[in-house]
Amino acid sequence: MKKELNWSLGYSDNSTDFPAEYFPATVPGAVQLDYAKEYNLPNHNAELNFKEYAWMEDKYWFYTTEYDSNNLKGNKLYFISEGIDYKFDILINGECRYSYEGMYHKVEVDLSDLIGSIIKIDVIIYPVPKSKIGNIVPNARDEANQTTKPGVSYGWDFHPRLVPLGIWNDTYILESNLCEIAEPKVTYSLNSERSKALVDFSVNISESVSWSFYAPNGDLIFSSNKFNDKFELDNPLLWWCNGYGEPNLYKWELNVGGEKFIGKVGFKTVSLEMNEGTWNVPEFPKTRSCPPITLCLNGVNVFVKGSNWVAPEIFYATINENRYREQLTLVRDANLNFVRCWGGAIVNKEAFYDICDELGIMVWQEFPLGCNDYISTPEYLSLLKNEALDIIKRVSKHACHVIWCGGNELFNSWSGMTEQSLALRTLNSLTLDKTPNIPFIPTSPLMGMAHGSYLFIYFEGNEAIEVMQNSKNTAYTEFGMPSISNIECLKQVTAKENLFPLINNDVTRAHHAFKAWCQEENWSSVETIAHYFGESESLEQLVERGQYLQGVGYRFIFEEARRQKPYCSMAVNWCFNEPWPCIANNSLVCYPNYIKPAYYEVAKACRNVLASARYRKLQHKAGEMLEFDLWILNDGVKPIDGETVNVSVQIGDEQPVHIIDWQFPNLSANTNFEGPTLRYKLPEVYGAETLKIILSCGEYSSEYTLLYNCPSPEKPKEKILNI
Amino acid sequence: MKKELNWSLGYSDNSTDFPAEYFPATVPGAVQLDYAKEYNLPNHNAELNFKEYAWMEDKYWFYTTEYDSNNLKGNKLYFISEGIDYKFDILINGECRYSYEGMYHKVEVDLSDLIGSIIKIDVIIYPVPKSKIGNIVPNARDEANQTTKPGVSYGWDFHPRLVPLGIWNDTYILESNLCEIAEPKVTYSLNSERSKALVDFSVNISESVSWSFYAPNGDLIFSSNKFNDKFELDNPLLWWCNGYGEPNLYKWELNVGGEKFIGKVGFKTVSLEMNEGTWNVPEFPKTRSCPPITLCLNGVNVFVKGSNWVAPEIFYATINENRYREQLTLVRDANLNFVRCWGGAIVNKEAFYDICDELGIMVWQEFPLGCNDYISTPEYLSLLKNEALDIIKRVSKHACHVIWCGGNELFNSWSGMTEQSLALRTLNSLTLDKTPNIPFIPTSPLMGMAHGSYLFIYFEGNEAIEVMQNSKNTAYTEFGMPSISNIECLKQVTAKENLFPLINNDVTRAHHAFKAWCQEENWSSVETIAHYFGESESLEQLVERGQYLQGVGYRFIFEEARRQKPYCSMAVNWCFNEPWPCIANNSLVCYPNYIKPAYYEVAKACRNVLASARYRKLQHKAGEMLEFDLWILNDGVKPIDGETVNVSVQIGDEQPVHIIDWQFPNLSANTNFEGPTLRYKLPEVYGAETLKIILSCGEYSSEYTLLYNCPSPEKPKEKILNI
Repeated sequence: MKKELNWSLGYSDNSTDFPAEYFPATVPGAVQLDYAKEYNLPNHNAELNFKEYAWMEDKYWFYTTEYDSNNLKGNKLYFISEGIDYKFDILINGECRYSYEGMYHKVEVDLSDLIGSIIKIDVIIYPVPKSKIGNIVPNARDEANQTTKPGVSYGWDFHPRLVPLGIWNDTYILESNLCEIAEPKVTYSLNSERSKALVDFSVNISESVSWSFYAPNGDLIFSSNKFNDKFELDNPLLWWCNGYGEPNLYKWELNVGGEKFIGKVGFKTVSLEMNEGTWNVPEFPKTRSCPPITLCLNGVNVFVKGSNWVAPEIFYATINENRYREQLTLVRDANLNFVRCWGGAIVNKEAFYDICDELGIMVWQEFPLGCNDYISTPEYLSLLKNEALDIIKRVSKHACHVIWCGGNELFNSWSGMTEQSLALRTLNSLTLDKTPNIPFIPTSPLMGMAHGSYLFIYFEGNEAIEVMQNSKNTAYTEFGMPSISNIECLKQVTAKENLFPLINNDVTRAHHAFKAWCQEENWSSVETIAHYFGESESLEQLVERGQYLQGVGYRFIFEEARRQKPYCSMAVNWCFNEPWPCIANNSLVCYPNYIKPAYYEVAKACRNVLASARYRKLQHKAGEMLEFDLWILNDGVKPIDGETVNVSVQIGDEQPVHIIDWQFPNLSANTNFEGPTLRYKLPEVYGAETLKIILSCGEYSSEYTLLYNCPSPEKPKEKILNI
Repeated sequence: MKKELNWSLGYSDNSTDFPAEYFPATVPGAVQLDYAKEYNLPNHNAELNFKEYAWMEDKYWFYTTEYDSNNLKGNKLYFISEGIDYKFDILINGECRYSYEGMYHKVEVDLSDLIGSIIKIDVIIYPVPKSKIGNIVPNARDEANQTTKPGVSYGWDFHPRLVPLGIWNDTYILESNLCEIAEPKVTYSLNSERSKALVDFSVNISESVSWSFYAPNGDLIFSSNKFNDKFELDNPLLWWCNGYGEPNLYKWELNVGGEKFIGKVGFKTVSLEMNEGTWNVPEFPKTRSCPPITLCLNGVNVFVKGSNWVAPEIFYATINENRYREQLTLVRDANLNFVRCWGGAIVNKEAFYDICDELGIMVWQEFPLGCNDYISTPEYLSLLKNEALDIIKRVSKHACHVIWCGGNELFNSWSGMTEQSLALRTLNSLTLDKTPNIPFIPTSPLMGMAHGSYLFIYFEGNEAIEVMQNSKNTAYTEFGMPSISNIECLKQVTAKENLFPLINNDVTRAHHAFKAWCQEENWSSVETIAHYFGESESLEQLVERGQYLQGVGYRFIFEEARRQKPYCSMAVNWCFNEPWPCIANNSLVCYPNYIKPAYYEVAKACRNVLASARYRKLQHKAGEMLEFDLWILNDGVKPIDGETVNVSVQIGDEQPVHIIDWQFPNLSANTNFEGPTLRYKLPEVYGAETLKIILSCGEYSSEYTLLYNCPSPEKPKEKILNI
């Protein structure tokens, strides 16, 4: 039986001087939030308030509680924590019983010897780890290069420097009659045709046990009173990702010594296969082929449509099931089948994977390494190994889990790691040992895969639309398209009046509107917006225009990556969500959960089947030739019948002009079809500002709103366009 | 004390019917050689005789011997074999005591319970393993995809199909007084400055022991009577590769229970570092950087000059220390510092690594995988793991060992493996566990590295000279340049008269003169020779011309790879030696040990410091502009003083024409210098057939003999050139 605890919190400058003063603490939680509540610190999400939290990084934090174990029903008593962030000692009645470094370890402290007394529990949290190994820029993410804490907490281009500490995951007293803590284990293997599943189960308790297994429809399919047994299942319903089938989950229940445990199993096979065309390596002297990145689920090559998942809160301890569910439901509803749990962020809490299991969202899980050279000191290797084993144990039991990845962009110059890193070789080795059926890749991107860019107009002055259709990559595991956030989101940062005109100042920079990445403007894209539309007259108009560009860009890239299938096998935008109110960011959903218009454009681009137009650029002038290729994009698992696409072009509010009726043939499952290239000379329509390509074909229909420019003779320039 | 055994051999069609007839066997050896000797089979190296050996693949072979263990001095008795090829049972007095699959395992059978009797020992060797898993072409190398036998035995473009079986490595009775078989272990660690070595040693025997350690000069530096001890050494002399310093080896001696063991230690650190310039990944969308392949020995980036080592005998059991030594001495004397022990061949016997230790030849050791898809069945993974552990244990204790590699060309289409292979992940994991200080790469080539081509004129019609100077790779770990073998070598195949004119027939094809690889002619290059020289008038002339082309080609590529340093870090030609008399091959030394002229050209190209000319092509016409770039190639570990290079050009027997005195500056260690590009309009010299570029500068001097063509007005074409 689990018992909650009431905690108090204080701090001091070292681990031996206990605090003079304590105040109430929320567990799970973060010391910063408790302090802020007690001392009325302003909300860290607004203005530059996060800076007032900085000093807390370097303190020792003392949690304390008492538990009265008189009148206990069980004969065993444990203090259990699913995660303490980050380095800590646990003192029982003033004596240290447990010390650890690492936030992913499940802590179990046996207190049975103290049953019948009032037990004092102190958890001492050490200051934020700050590496001095390697070329460290102080106060930057480099300081995370010897830790498994999320690098993002140390500051990123969408996250302020604010490093949580505290008891961050479920923590409680366990009273039990069992001889030890029960660890039920349910595993399975599938035969090569996936027509038989062998389910193996066991629990480390030999008392009277009762197991029950249920089919996805709730039917009881097997029961056993052995603590260790197995059964074979004919034609198991497989776990499928969104768009490819049902995310079938079998459930199990174990009753042992009056305690009940539940769990679920999703049957699947997963592998990384060579992308079609990548075996070709043209001339001598000959190098190797690109590594495989086509995700094969249950024998079907899935086109991965996904998004990069970053923790939805700076203080990740506060994320609960509802918070995960509201955002993951949005992922599913955008016709996505995948999230990349990016290595700069935390490895999520259990609820995250449970929901992904349920919604059919495949999970690429990175270990907590990102954009640093994680130098393989013996201490770091030992820490990483410990944490990795806990992560592997927890994540890999989920049906949704399909790929391990060592971390983010580790083989690029800004990180400086290579395959020779002992840390990455260790992760390869541990995952091989524990989960040989789940692919492991050391980092993203690998050769042939690509990250970026993150702008509508690239540094070189080209539109993403142009660059992406001339790129040829096996997977786009990051591509960004920024916009200013929704007005409701912006209001969390500062008063609206402070944001128009949107200028570069401490607050707008801190919230990533300016200079978050490489250029003066970038996520805000104010110059890009002005380039296409001229000056904006209000914040609302500026936001609307920027969000229009984001939507166009994301939709184009998702569709373009799909057009490049099967050489290309993944389109995963950067990023889905954000951890605090950014003034501007590449996210589809802004903090805490405001949906940007681009979200809906992505949802359109990711329908299983659609008619798609590959146009050449955003803005067209009267008299120019509008040119676009017609495609049917088909990720469907069933063949589709040929139909007719009625293609028309509409300028401004004019009547659409019919261009062609294009009949595409019957298509086999999971196969695109490339149609004709159409050209249409754009007429002069004074005053019109938009140009629509309309592909009309029932549920496969698509409509693209581009920009049109036909200056009247009197007013040829600097025209403000309204979209 | 080791005792030799006298063996007899027979064969049968299954493992249970013992042979009716036995004949004498040589151990170590191969069943085929014993049979051939007994039954007077013709030499397998000549003509098509190897075909007469084919049937032996599918038999069960029975070795038998007896050992009289009466009057034994020790109280322990073992049967020991360093390697039995390949799957076998060992019967003691008719009962199976040991079964194993794998040729790299050290077999130890305890016979102590039988002391005082005459012991009968039978070793039953199973037929050659022939995989049926995957897409198997019968009688081809595909059949090796579930074994650790060398793939090359199954047939290759320089090796006939002839698959040895038998007791292939040292095998004996061990009489001992020790409680168990002694396994002395000496390891070391170096501090980061390499100024202190900590030597750790132990033996699994707690009887009276005596250890002595000696410096490279023979001085006793430490002794101990503990079975487990250590000592620290200040400023240890490091082990250096050829050209970079002395291959210093410390020696140790252990006396325990009247038995003596000796060994050696070479102190070194090794790593793979990023090649200069490879961090640059130009545009978005951005992929990763190339993996590192600069070999850093003791903190110094070494330019690897090496050769691919293939077993020097088809029947590898017959290779002894002398055979290794004569060829490895040639490697060293060619100014090479490296051999790639190619995955298609065996992992060599102990003597090989001992000699490399001694000569300063670094060893890249591949596991026995090459050009196949080694499918990760549970059986194969188990076999590979066992064999790999034995290989790792044996090879890694040698100072010369600097790289592990999973195998040859596994990530190319003709093999079809990827990083996701569980076999390769297992090798990564095992080497990480056992030898974390030795780099591991899964295969060669990796991205950025290159293999090939293997012709003077590429398939596309370009000269290697042209292609290579326009290539940009991080390492050339295979590049071939074929020639016909020396006449003495050819005579081993067939009578000279059968080889001129050299035509495509069963014998010449079997000995790789024709159609060994992708074209009708290739290793013989008869068309290429005719292209440059017209028809040849004798076998001697044909050989001389082909060997001239081989020398020019190899020399150019070695020097070109060096010119591309530091972006390029390795030049390793395919191949050094050959396992039987090839009529034509890419080797530098033909069977058994005849030195081809190209060997001397390679030796010139690999001098630590030399003046080098990058010319554009082989053949020049009168009136054309001869163009070449001047370089100083400097792999020296010390700075060199600037000097003057006197550059001249000589046509035919004319007086050399002085072109320039080029003064190059003082150069820091290990740094090339690019000088001017020179152009010289070639005068008409009727009848002249050669063109020499002469770079005169003491020991750095180089001279290149190219082809010149100035047809006289009367006889403008089809001229036979004599070089």
